Amino acid sequence: MTKANTQMAAARAGKITPQMLTVAKDEGIQPEVLRDLIAQGKVVIPANPAHTNLHPVGFGEGTRIKVNVNLGRSQTTSCLTDEVAKVEAALKYGADAVMDLSTGPDIDSVRKAIIEACPAPLGTVPMYGAVNPVDDVAKLTVDDFLRTVKEQAEQGVDFMTIHAGLLKEHLPLVDSRLTGIVSRGGALTARWMKVHNRQNPYYEHFDEVLDIAAEHDITLSLGDGLRPGCLHDASDAAQFAELDTLGELTKKAWARNVQVMIEGPGHVPLDQIADNVKRQKKVCHGAPFYVLGPLVTDIAPGYDHITGAIGATLAAWAGADFLCYVTPMEHLGLPDLEDLRNGLIAFRIAAHAADIAKGHLGARDRDDAMARARYAFEWERQFELALDPDRAREYHDKVPAATQHRASRYCSMCGEKYCAMRNSALK
Amino acid sequence: MTKANTQMAAARAGKITPQMLTVAKDEGIQPEVLRDLIAQGKVVIPANPAHTNLHPVGFGEGTRIKVNVNLGRSQTTSCLTDEVAKVEAALKYGADAVMDLSTGPDIDSVRKAIIEACPAPLGTVPMYGAVNPVDDVAKLTVDDFLRTVKEQAEQGVDFMTIHAGLLKEHLPLVDSRLTGIVSRGGALTARWMKVHNRQNPYYEHFDEVLDIAAEHDITLSLGDGLRPGCLHDASDAAQFAELDTLGELTKKAWARNVQVMIEGPGHVPLDQIADNVKRQKKVCHGAPFYVLGPLVTDIAPGYDHITGAIGATLAAWAGADFLCYVTPMEHLGLPDLEDLRNGLIAFRIAAHAADIAKGHLGARDRDDAMARARYAFEWERQFELALDPDRAREYHDKVPAATQHRASRYCSMCGEKYCAMRNSALK
Repeated sequence: MTKANTQMAAARAGKITPQMLTVAKDEGIQPEVLRDLIAQGKVVIPANPAHTNLHPVGFGEGTRIKVNVNLGRSQTTSCLTDEVAKVEAALKYGADAVMDLSTGPDIDSVRKAIIEACPAPLGTVPMYGAVNPVDDVAKLTVDDFLRTVKEQAEQGVDFMTIHAGLLKEHLPLVDSRLTGIVSRGGALTARWMKVHNRQNPYYEHFDEVLDIAAEHDITLSLGDGLRPGCLHDASDAAQFAELDTLGELTKKAWARNVQVMIEGPGHVPLDQIADNVKRQKKVCHGAPFYVLGPLVTDIAPGYDHITGAIGATLAAWAGADFLCYVTPMEHLGLPDLEDLRNGLIAFRIAAHAADIAKGHLGARDRDDAMARARYAFEWERQFELALDPDRAREYHDKVPAATQHRASRYCSMCGEKYCAMRNSALK
Repeated sequence: MTKANTQMAAARAGKITPQMLTVAKDEGIQPEVLRDLIAQGKVVIPANPAHTNLHPVGFGEGTRIKVNVNLGRSQTTSCLTDEVAKVEAALKYGADAVMDLSTGPDIDSVRKAIIEACPAPLGTVPMYGAVNPVDDVAKLTVDDFLRTVKEQAEQGVDFMTIHAGLLKEHLPLVDSRLTGIVSRGGALTARWMKVHNRQNPYYEHFDEVLDIAAEHDITLSLGDGLRPGCLHDASDAAQFAELDTLGELTKKAWARNVQVMIEGPGHVPLDQIADNVKRQKKVCHGAPFYVLGPLVTDIAPGYDHITGAIGATLAAWAGADFLCYVTPMEHLGLPDLEDLRNGLIAFRIAAHAADIAKGHLGARDRDDAMARARYAFEWERQFELALDPDRAREYHDKVPAATQHRASRYCSMCGEKYCAMRNSALK
């Protein structure tokens, strides 16, 4: 059994690592408090020692809500330089983590380039790498699945989505759904199990996955292969059966000092979101919760960064720790740079609004500074304080002659005479 | 005292009007039930008989959540044809009501053209018309304020924002705020009161306002002149003092059979939204609540349609009945057609998500139809079901060769091999 070389092992041994010191400083919490949360599994710091340019980030209880950007080429679209440009955009607009979900040609070199360009924690779904060289997932062996986990760990990936909780026994529960399985990794795993009539290889060989994770300090992001793909399928027996298995796997990982977070839905009606979060936290013993959206309606393709941000805000407020962004291209195609920007800002709004609602220390300071800048008509200061200064400046200047209003105590929306703040401040 | 020629008077006399029949049919509720809700003031149908092309709409308890689009020229920007084009776009993308907030030249003819183009209930803020001909609101007399209410009532306006609840006594409560008064009508009213050291003219002469409203069945939208303009100022003494006055005015209006709704904030942290809605409903005796946003953070200029849609979703879920949209240009300048579209769809998402969460009958049917179309890879059907079919089609076709994928059982996001729904459906 591999000895764990992980943040969790260090924390449980009472050690405060350099990574913990950085995170504690960034979060404004005591290193000892952070260490104890890591020891309990309530906070993770995905920090693969092979990711040499990493600036470590903490996820979980007591930390600021984080946002992940998914990127990566598809089988047909994009290339290495496109994806490195996306990493740069993700960092510019404030992503806390990046997942490379590349599929198709050259994905090893794409991943290498992304890791080198990315000081943020980097995640992958090793299943995509495993299935890449074959035309049907059914052709893969258990060794193939494990080998990609190991290769990507050696390459410097910090966290990995592993769909180990989706069992053969769960598959009949999917039959009553409208949209079946909508997780890419989940659907591939399900197909493999059906063709071979065997158990999930990541579940059966979870100890070997843990060996790799313990050696390289890979944080396992236990995937929700059965997350609902539409409102109708939310909170169903399939989803919760898998969640129960994720709870078991969490304990197994912790017994090996492997860091774990849990992935969650998906598409969920507003009134089920808080219950979903609370159930996850209970079933998975307080492990950090990483949600995709959730999307609160199915009828807004082209605007799913908004349907997702609404659900994410509620999820984060209810206790989710880490938000995976959704872009306007969701359900329609591969996002480009502008889609990434729109999706990321929407989710930064969600994270920030929830930090404020949770009373996170100092979370509202920047809002108050913005309020002061607005009342003083300090336009440049407003742009500086904006989540997306370029966009704020561009929109302000969209109206003819607006730049010359830059020094004015009003904007083109109301004009001088009707400006409420101007009139409010008149003596 | 003018005899009330209003939906409320009819309802209280036990009559079911043609407008009630239309609304009952559109909402799928019994006409008798609707009539009783109108009699109690819990539902309003803003329907000025002079608005001859009106398709009546109901707002309030038991009805679908509605969305308003603000439009109108500013002092410096836009013209009549631009604004009529905005009305058409608002209707195309599903606005339930339209407010003409025009200021500057030609606003009477702009308003006339908008009314003629608009079968949706139309609202205004008569204060803007009153102040238009003068360079300082302080030059206006009480008669000037009342005359514009009367003129616009005769012209066919269905509902009017009247800032009658902002009293002279409330003004000192604003001093501790970061952004003072951010309501245009509120700030103008405050300035008039300060210069003349007199009480709010709409408050002092509320009986005369009610005379006009009773005669023309103007639904009064009692304005929140002291709504918070930043998170810091939310739920403060100023806001709630005005709300108490709005509660008094509601009773006065109802005593005259005048329909009333109440306007609400503004900028509100997530965790205060539900309490705000519940307090309004209690203080204002169940009158329909019309919220502007609320925005859940101050730091996202350029994206305030999203910060607003997040707050609006929560407000609607907690009981708000009518959502005033916010566009990406909020705080930056006058919205154009594309901003209107983006703001409106964001708020239709909010309204729809809340209808689903509240268990509104049949609210999820369209989502389920979308889920079925997705699982069947019926792309054209997906576009038809989308809140914005043009946008969905455009984004899907953005990726090269996507149109030829229109017949395919996958899209450019994952490609064929990785497509979860495709793999999930494989036997």
